[in-house]
Amino acid sequence: MRNDITQVLTRFIRDTRFEDLPAPMRHEAERTLINWIGCAIGGAPHETVTRAIQALAPFFGPPQATLFGRRERADILHAALLNGISSHVLDFDDTHIETAIHPAAPVLPAILALAEHIPVSGRDFLAALVVGIETELRIGVAVTPAHYRAGWHITGTVGVFGSAAAAGKLLGLSEQELAWALGLAAAQPVGLQEMFGSMTKSFHPGRAGQNGLTAALLARAGYTSSPRALEAERGWLKVLSSACDTEAITGPAPPWEILNNSYKPFACGLVVHPVIDGCLRLRAAHGLTAETIERIEAVVHPRVMDVTAIREPTTGLQGKFSVYHAAAVAIAEGAAGEREFGDEIVRAPRIAQLRRRVAVEIDPAVGKAQAHVAIVLKGGARHAVFVEHAVGSVQNPMSDQMIEDKFRGLTEGMLAGAQADKILDLCRGADKLVDAGAIGRAAGA
Amino acid sequence: MRNDITQVLTRFIRDTRFEDLPAPMRHEAERTLINWIGCAIGGAPHETVTRAIQALAPFFGPPQATLFGRRERADILHAALLNGISSHVLDFDDTHIETAIHPAAPVLPAILALAEHIPVSGRDFLAALVVGIETELRIGVAVTPAHYRAGWHITGTVGVFGSAAAAGKLLGLSEQELAWALGLAAAQPVGLQEMFGSMTKSFHPGRAGQNGLTAALLARAGYTSSPRALEAERGWLKVLSSACDTEAITGPAPPWEILNNSYKPFACGLVVHPVIDGCLRLRAAHGLTAETIERIEAVVHPRVMDVTAIREPTTGLQGKFSVYHAAAVAIAEGAAGEREFGDEIVRAPRIAQLRRRVAVEIDPAVGKAQAHVAIVLKGGARHAVFVEHAVGSVQNPMSDQMIEDKFRGLTEGMLAGAQADKILDLCRGADKLVDAGAIGRAAGA
Repeated sequence: MRNDITQVLTRFIRDTRFEDLPAPMRHEAERTLINWIGCAIGGAPHETVTRAIQALAPFFGPPQATLFGRRERADILHAALLNGISSHVLDFDDTHIETAIHPAAPVLPAILALAEHIPVSGRDFLAALVVGIETELRIGVAVTPAHYRAGWHITGTVGVFGSAAAAGKLLGLSEQELAWALGLAAAQPVGLQEMFGSMTKSFHPGRAGQNGLTAALLARAGYTSSPRALEAERGWLKVLSSACDTEAITGPAPPWEILNNSYKPFACGLVVHPVIDGCLRLRAAHGLTAETIERIEAVVHPRVMDVTAIREPTTGLQGKFSVYHAAAVAIAEGAAGEREFGDEIVRAPRIAQLRRRVAVEIDPAVGKAQAHVAIVLKGGARHAVFVEHAVGSVQNPMSDQMIEDKFRGLTEGMLAGAQADKILDLCRGADKLVDAGAIGRAAGA
Repeated sequence: MRNDITQVLTRFIRDTRFEDLPAPMRHEAERTLINWIGCAIGGAPHETVTRAIQALAPFFGPPQATLFGRRERADILHAALLNGISSHVLDFDDTHIETAIHPAAPVLPAILALAEHIPVSGRDFLAALVVGIETELRIGVAVTPAHYRAGWHITGTVGVFGSAAAAGKLLGLSEQELAWALGLAAAQPVGLQEMFGSMTKSFHPGRAGQNGLTAALLARAGYTSSPRALEAERGWLKVLSSACDTEAITGPAPPWEILNNSYKPFACGLVVHPVIDGCLRLRAAHGLTAETIERIEAVVHPRVMDVTAIREPTTGLQGKFSVYHAAAVAIAEGAAGEREFGDEIVRAPRIAQLRRRVAVEIDPAVGKAQAHVAIVLKGGARHAVFVEHAVGSVQNPMSDQMIEDKFRGLTEGMLAGAQADKILDLCRGADKLVDAGAIGRAAGA
């Protein structure tokens, strides 16, 4: 293994300036920011967040930073943890498909909190965001697939590097201090896949964000660590992964991995998205309503039935694991957001009736982002569509308007309309902000 | 693998009462407590601790708990971190030889801080201490040697379970809540061996203590996790160790692993103690001085050269990871305390010269607590000794008086004489304390 891997990263972190970022990266950073804030505010009332605050509030430091979508304020370390939890609790945040990393969840809570505490310009903030995400994704690509297959929850184990890199950049760390920050990050991986299905899953990116921020703050104070945390014989890469391709870290950019970030249009696992997309396309093309429909047919990748085969869901959470429910709400409601995966809609008799009219077949020839969907009307007519790349995939990304609509859907009822407008304006004009802390300060309840 | 390993532990944690502990365990808990507090106070002025406080003080919550040997106060989570760092920074704390775990360093800072925050009797405190140490040591024995060989710093990776168990017991968690606490602990292992020689090494047990305490507090608030964090297919045991013997966890006690705890007479890693002991014995027997010596020869267990092979240390911290330095100061200074592992002595030319005369060979037939040491004098004479059980080993333990003397040596100049007496009295009568928080409150500067 090369013996300068950590150094390659620290130089990249230190030297990358906003001015060096091509326009598509700046734009992707802005989309990542808007999507993430929507998720953090939308997740804020979840009992996962409420219980974490209840446990930790007696130990909060000064009210330095906003808890997104909430009235409480906390010190920046607790804010990083709690905003990280709320941004991931709905499983609606961004995804880097190749690695299964949720890139923003560990990085943004750390640097948004930090930007409320120290002076940070919008340009420096965006550069830190990009650098943080590139750092974690390059490391993630290097250890894919061995690291994930071993059972680690990669968003938390790799995310701590992203948070440390981004926070370290905002703190103006030297190359040596950045190496110490990465060393302190390497010593604190967070997350096992065994925790999926419990509140601890969303704890992973939050804690990774908090750990990375802590690492950067300690390094700034001269707290030393290994300068070769990644590549050393007993360093992170060898201890946490049975195989790795370090060229992903040390090779020249592009590719910029942030350009492979993707956003979920629908509030459920990615495997069902092609079916939902097909239903929505047919609904729009043919003016369908639930009453006119005899049957919904779908042919899908086998994994869909491994994960989402619940025939008769009775809770919102079960609805997210039911391809039948997903198809039914897409046709009946023309949407598949948090509302459509809530207890109320899952239990509505009209939706249950339509769910029973959904027939699903599997076909290994259908790709993971693909589906054949057909609607048979009561009169006998049949409309069919083949979804080659579901909306939200890298090949068929959500439009800026769709991301805005998702943001508004997630924050509806949580924020006054004008407040949502203000946050969107701040994010879209982030490169012109004198004070990037304004973003966080606008996002409390 | 058995599917009830986590449950076996949660029942053990919940059900073990002070009244059930045989007298030798209570006595060993008291020795562990005195030894650890001495180390925490002795380490308090170290720049490692000062830099950590400087970095994190702006984020401290209410002054709920004492920072040992310091004037500052912090919330209990930061106190657990910082006292854990200061207790390990001198590498002078207790060690469980079989696993290389420093048992007290993650556990005691968590429960001493907690005892300043909630009402805790001395008996409950001692029971929590024993339960925390048994929990981490049983898990540690189960994954020894594979886990350590992989490169993990086991004190931090396993210590988080000890802290969670002990804090969870003091918080009166139910069996389900204890399982969640262990799950949250499993998701937060801390520590890579690559960090040895930097400040991050002592960060490991401190952060493990803080993480375990956080886990217990979250679990109390209903923050859920996997109920099978240890034994699950993608749980801690399989992900963090290529092999394990779970009988060490699920088998009946005794053995109580705390009875195998040991205390260091010398201010460096235990692996080097047999060499130091041998040098001191030869020095005393033959009136040796550095000037008369041609060569120092040692034959040691292979681990010695895994961990302490730094040939030319340039800082006190590096000196602790140099068997060459350890042998040199034992001969030249007749001692191996904090002073002999300080920057000044490490950089002294006369010590550097003697270090270069040290020759080390490894031999798998030599036990971990053993060493062959020989001195070749310039005139050609050769004196040799075989150390079968180094002083401070389980078979040749420090006496209570030696531990008290070590405590007084470590706290000298840090505390008034009467304050040292008071702490010793509180520890020796801990089982009679109505308020175990008195121990921590007596230990500030």
